[in-house]
Amino acid sequence: MKKFRKVRLVSFDYGQRHKTEIQAAKRIAKKLDLPHQTLRLPILSELTRNALTDNTVKIKTRKNKLPTTFVDGRNALFLTVAAIYAKQKGISDIVTGVCQTDYSGYPDCRQDFIKSIQKTLSLAMEYPFKIHTPLMFLSKAQSIGLMEKLGGLELLKYTHTCYEGTSPACGKCPACKLRLKGFKEYGIDDLIYYR
Amino acid sequence: MKKFRKVRLVSFDYGQRHKTEIQAAKRIAKKLDLPHQTLRLPILSELTRNALTDNTVKIKTRKNKLPTTFVDGRNALFLTVAAIYAKQKGISDIVTGVCQTDYSGYPDCRQDFIKSIQKTLSLAMEYPFKIHTPLMFLSKAQSIGLMEKLGGLELLKYTHTCYEGTSPACGKCPACKLRLKGFKEYGIDDLIYYR
Repeated sequence: MKKFRKVRLVSFDYGQRHKTEIQAAKRIAKKLDLPHQTLRLPILSELTRNALTDNTVKIKTRKNKLPTTFVDGRNALFLTVAAIYAKQKGISDIVTGVCQTDYSGYPDCRQDFIKSIQKTLSLAMEYPFKIHTPLMFLSKAQSIGLMEKLGGLELLKYTHTCYEGTSPACGKCPACKLRLKGFKEYGIDDLIYYR
Repeated sequence: MKKFRKVRLVSFDYGQRHKTEIQAAKRIAKKLDLPHQTLRLPILSELTRNALTDNTVKIKTRKNKLPTTFVDGRNALFLTVAAIYAKQKGISDIVTGVCQTDYSGYPDCRQDFIKSIQKTLSLAMEYPFKIHTPLMFLSKAQSIGLMEKLGGLELLKYTHTCYEGTSPACGKCPACKLRLKGFKEYGIDDLIYYR
């Protein structure tokens, strides 16, 4: 895995119900003493109806259909805006935590999408973007292992995963379940509280 | 050129100085009795510094460099948001007026970029987007010819092109010059007023 000497962090506020994830990102940025910026993209909740931005939509997975938590175009929009931000600062390397392994049915978390948008954004701005996805082929258990190896295990205490956006976490939504399964497989207790 | 029975129009408000182009789009939509919506993307002017959103930057072309009017990631962002909008309405066909011929040095107006983002967006949303670019290989004179052929020549009276955003148009910015050249080549007078 490539390491970088200088890092800037960005979060996206797109009207998600679990906006507390932005606070979590800020706390972690502060712990790591890294600059963090929140970029606002209200257009996403203005245009789409899904369980992550609209609490009248139930969080559920569906047979042969994308889950109700899928936000159309979210990662395409995030990566496009991250690339615009990066180029202004002379940055070519973009790192994102998308993951194809613990598959949640999100097409925009897959390797083929990332390869494609890397090319698209490089063409769009005539700039050699490189999108890094260190978690792409890791299970959640392996991601926890990576955090431990990098000496960052205690930072998991400050992370947020729950789709409901509650703290303590609900423990029941698909995101909580995936997280809990990861900790169980890795053989340690989760560091956050559940209801 | 493919024709469509049902059409919806979208414009983008990204903090451009020539915001009057949105009013022009609305007027034309009204003339054609087509629904029109303006989508707000303030993030573009928040993140980038260029002559189109910042009047302290001079409008100019530069040798071996992108012109100061190039807005990083603009068409990538527009097409991504247009695709999100389209999918919510069950629309697969997206039409955009980008043009590679009357080359202004914009990489995100080129055919290879359009092909690439069409694939990227289809992968991102698991949806068969088709991006149409009827003006891609037309000169401005040929675009005017197309308008005449389609019986829409008089609509050019309501269009806006000037980067300065003034009405009457400045007649001196690169966009005005390109437009005037097109009318001259086509052999008719422009239908808008110039200073």
